[in-house]
Amino acid sequence: MTPAMHMGRLWLVPNALDHGADPVAIDDVLPRGVLAHAAALAHWVVEDARSARAFLKRVGVVVPLHLPLQDIAITELPRARKGSKEAVPMQAWQDLLQPALAGHDIGLLSEAGLPAVADPGAAVVAAAHTLGITVMPLAGASALLLALAASGLNGQSFAFVGYLPQEADARARRLRELEALSRQQDQTQLFIETPYRNSALAAALLAQLRPDTRLSISCGLTLPQGWTRCQSVERWRAAPPRMPDSVPAVFAILAA
Amino acid sequence: MTPAMHMGRLWLVPNALDHGADPVAIDDVLPRGVLAHAAALAHWVVEDARSARAFLKRVGVVVPLHLPLQDIAITELPRARKGSKEAVPMQAWQDLLQPALAGHDIGLLSEAGLPAVADPGAAVVAAAHTLGITVMPLAGASALLLALAASGLNGQSFAFVGYLPQEADARARRLRELEALSRQQDQTQLFIETPYRNSALAAALLAQLRPDTRLSISCGLTLPQGWTRCQSVERWRAAPPRMPDSVPAVFAILAA
Repeated sequence: MTPAMHMGRLWLVPNALDHGADPVAIDDVLPRGVLAHAAALAHWVVEDARSARAFLKRVGVVVPLHLPLQDIAITELPRARKGSKEAVPMQAWQDLLQPALAGHDIGLLSEAGLPAVADPGAAVVAAAHTLGITVMPLAGASALLLALAASGLNGQSFAFVGYLPQEADARARRLRELEALSRQQDQTQLFIETPYRNSALAAALLAQLRPDTRLSISCGLTLPQGWTRCQSVERWRAAPPRMPDSVPAVFAILAA
Repeated sequence: MTPAMHMGRLWLVPNALDHGADPVAIDDVLPRGVLAHAAALAHWVVEDARSARAFLKRVGVVVPLHLPLQDIAITELPRARKGSKEAVPMQAWQDLLQPALAGHDIGLLSEAGLPAVADPGAAVVAAAHTLGITVMPLAGASALLLALAASGLNGQSFAFVGYLPQEADARARRLRELEALSRQQDQTQLFIETPYRNSALAAALLAQLRPDTRLSISCGLTLPQGWTRCQSVERWRAAPPRMPDSVPAVFAILAA
């Protein structure tokens, strides 16, 4: 028997997309098999311990947890100190994976959607590969891809570029750059914003983009009040969107 | 009451990721709420009618279908004639949405994963937006994003570029281009290949990419035999992957 056979695995556990909103039924958005996997794990590495405990409580309603919540080990991802340019040292990421080296499966959980996509979890996954720990992603939704599917924009070539600059001139330059790239490559460009700045970003998009660029806005995906609308910037200008300030939105553009 | 209130909606229904493999339990990969939605729909627009009927049979095992299978209207997406440069006319896409204009909900279904991502369904979604039909994506997994999450590569900036050229020189040029782009933008680049050409693509990647570029390969995501491995091209060269020729793979690179 090789040592690897004694190692635990790193399970990437998807979360619901209702962070910050009224919770939806967990069964509506996560597969039963994923909930059963999550209910069995005794070790977790998570973006936020409080929301992880809330997640496990929701799981437990559908599939009883194998251990009482207080006996489940929940460790938060390390954060780089605010304002510090120093990266979190590789050793800190590897330390999180000690339970797997000792033979225990670990769950990785984000506050919303897939872990390690648009959140700091990717470094833990990279550390797992370095240590020879098997990484197993469980089926779940990413708001980015639901927004892309719902946009009707090019789904054969697309990019997610994270957040745009906050400063107005830098943001305008970045938008022109993304619009040019979209046109040259026929590539949909997706980005996100902190919810309370959604309105400001929407206004900037309507001001800066070309009239014939198609702009898709998705708010509150999988929520009852969620919506996606895609039309030319020219049409958006005639009836600007009313953006919620507490629900995440995903923006996508495709230049003509 | 406005006419829009009488319109049906277009539901984007995720499929499992086991197309071409032994089927997994549908409950392991799709949420109960999504199965319930799918079981209620009487009108479908699908990539392939045969696999759509197989999907509905699997759904029916968990949630009884509201109508007998033979009474459910299943229409395939139009395809551009092989070798023809003519696009499918917009009218053909709009015709598919007639049931929604008549007040019936429609499901859009791909052979695997999310509809309208890396498949021809995006044109139907675009037509729905043009006609003012509400588009509702249901929570489901995309192999592309599971592969990205499992890679541990940059999940804050990534692009999916579809298929690479088949011809060796053109493919080598495209790979150098993607590797340079990945380095300049610190952006993960994802691409796919027809399963029977997986081995040829893996060999080309090992031959063409720089030794310190990280390469992640995911095969058969969500399948029992599925795996993801991410390491430097140099390490891959020491132990090349054994690629399956009938299971989809997703490739991702991040240049150093």
